[in-house]
Amino acid sequence: MEGYRRFLALLVSALLLGFVAVVCSIVWVLRYREGLGWDGGAAEFNWHPVLVVTAIIVYRLPWTWKCSKLLMKFIHAGLNTIAMILAIVSMVAVFEYHNARKIPNMYSLHSWIGLTLVFPKALTMNLFFPLRAALMPIHVYSGLLIFVAVIASALMGITEKLLFSLQSPAYSESPPEAIFVNCLGLLIVTFGALILWMASRPHWKRPPEENAKVQRPNGGAPEGVEAESTMTDCSNADRSDAGFNSEAARKRNFKLDEAGQRSTM
Amino acid sequence: MEGYRRFLALLVSALLLGFVAVVCSIVWVLRYREGLGWDGGAAEFNWHPVLVVTAIIVYRLPWTWKCSKLLMKFIHAGLNTIAMILAIVSMVAVFEYHNARKIPNMYSLHSWIGLTLVFPKALTMNLFFPLRAALMPIHVYSGLLIFVAVIASALMGITEKLLFSLQSPAYSESPPEAIFVNCLGLLIVTFGALILWMASRPHWKRPPEENAKVQRPNGGAPEGVEAESTMTDCSNADRSDAGFNSEAARKRNFKLDEAGQRSTM
Repeated sequence: MEGYRRFLALLVSALLLGFVAVVCSIVWVLRYREGLGWDGGAAEFNWHPVLVVTAIIVYRLPWTWKCSKLLMKFIHAGLNTIAMILAIVSMVAVFEYHNARKIPNMYSLHSWIGLTLVFPKALTMNLFFPLRAALMPIHVYSGLLIFVAVIASALMGITEKLLFSLQSPAYSESPPEAIFVNCLGLLIVTFGALILWMASRPHWKRPPEENAKVQRPNGGAPEGVEAESTMTDCSNADRSDAGFNSEAARKRNFKLDEAGQRSTM
Repeated sequence: MEGYRRFLALLVSALLLGFVAVVCSIVWVLRYREGLGWDGGAAEFNWHPVLVVTAIIVYRLPWTWKCSKLLMKFIHAGLNTIAMILAIVSMVAVFEYHNARKIPNMYSLHSWIGLTLVFPKALTMNLFFPLRAALMPIHVYSGLLIFVAVIASALMGITEKLLFSLQSPAYSESPPEAIFVNCLGLLIVTFGALILWMASRPHWKRPPEENAKVQRPNGGAPEGVEAESTMTDCSNADRSDAGFNSEAARKRNFKLDEAGQRSTM
């Protein structure tokens, strides 16, 4: 793989940033807020930021090891399922909190965008299993778009929460909690920027397997390729990946690059 | 160009969406808020949302006509300069409003992210003129990242403004203004999603000119290519674009796709 060391460095950075972001969200609710609980109160609400930040990290955790395509598909689907479950539980926490306090649900732009994202997310996940070649570019694009939109939604959520919770001193007086949580927001943005960079480098895309089927619609836009992802190393590497990094594999890559897009992650 | 009609349809949709979003931001401040002015009061603040929404649209207005590369570079640089000026004036309006009302500046995550974006934006614009091949992938990536981050920042700004301004009835009671401005937020998100789709389709990238220089660093990641963008039609089309859509041009494309990334916009 070209720029292998740079890829590894970014991979480790993304893992670290993601880990720190999750820890920060936990510190936020434990140290500055009411902790965690499931009682219909503020402690239940607090699962919302913690689980959403964790979902964002899990959703795009770089897991691109040199595994067989099938194993990578399972890891990808598995992580996405975990992220989806975290997101749903985090929403249940908010609804229960709102209902217990008689606060209306679904009035803010944050809630509109956040809840809306569940549907394309479910759709994209459904697309994954019987993933037809022609749908691959849509799958990759919507995966990354949902990732970006969830981050935007999290930033709106942070804004809402700080404006609601910080009273004396107010958010505008920049108490320690405000600075801390603003930094959490910047961490999430940096994590997102890193992942987007890695996911959009053409030379870090996973080379196709030997038996990759290139489907090309007649006369239409040649967007169809099998699902592929970047890989780095894995103990149970599939033998069909033997062509990896070879000249032949690279030539096939150009063809596939023309034919559409492969997923890096 | 492959999928030319689809490209045109998306282009027109993006133009319409962008136009409607700008109109909505003006309707918001004229109908629901205090109008526009430059008096240190709320009417001055209102330039902020209007100019930022306009800047977002202008920044990524699809202008990819079949022009000479030089003309396209000038249009791209011109639109970016306009967007930058709009963004700066919009920030001046907020600072003046805050100072007149003795509201602290730069305390919210929205302000941190929004102001931070000015610097990479200025840097990316500086990169543009003497754009070296090796910097092109970074230029394209940071351009799109800034675009996405400004949208996220605008959504946070909308959230802040509605929470501050709507008192009786409050934001949570979903008065008409809340619904209207939430819809403006969704419009901006849809515009962004459309532009990102168009900008990331490999077959809608502008084919290289005849004299395109492919620079490839020794042993390093082959990211270097000349700045190129998708084009559709333009009266003063450059003759050097004659190879457009030909088999030879397409073959060069694969080579360039491997070598790095070209800009679609």
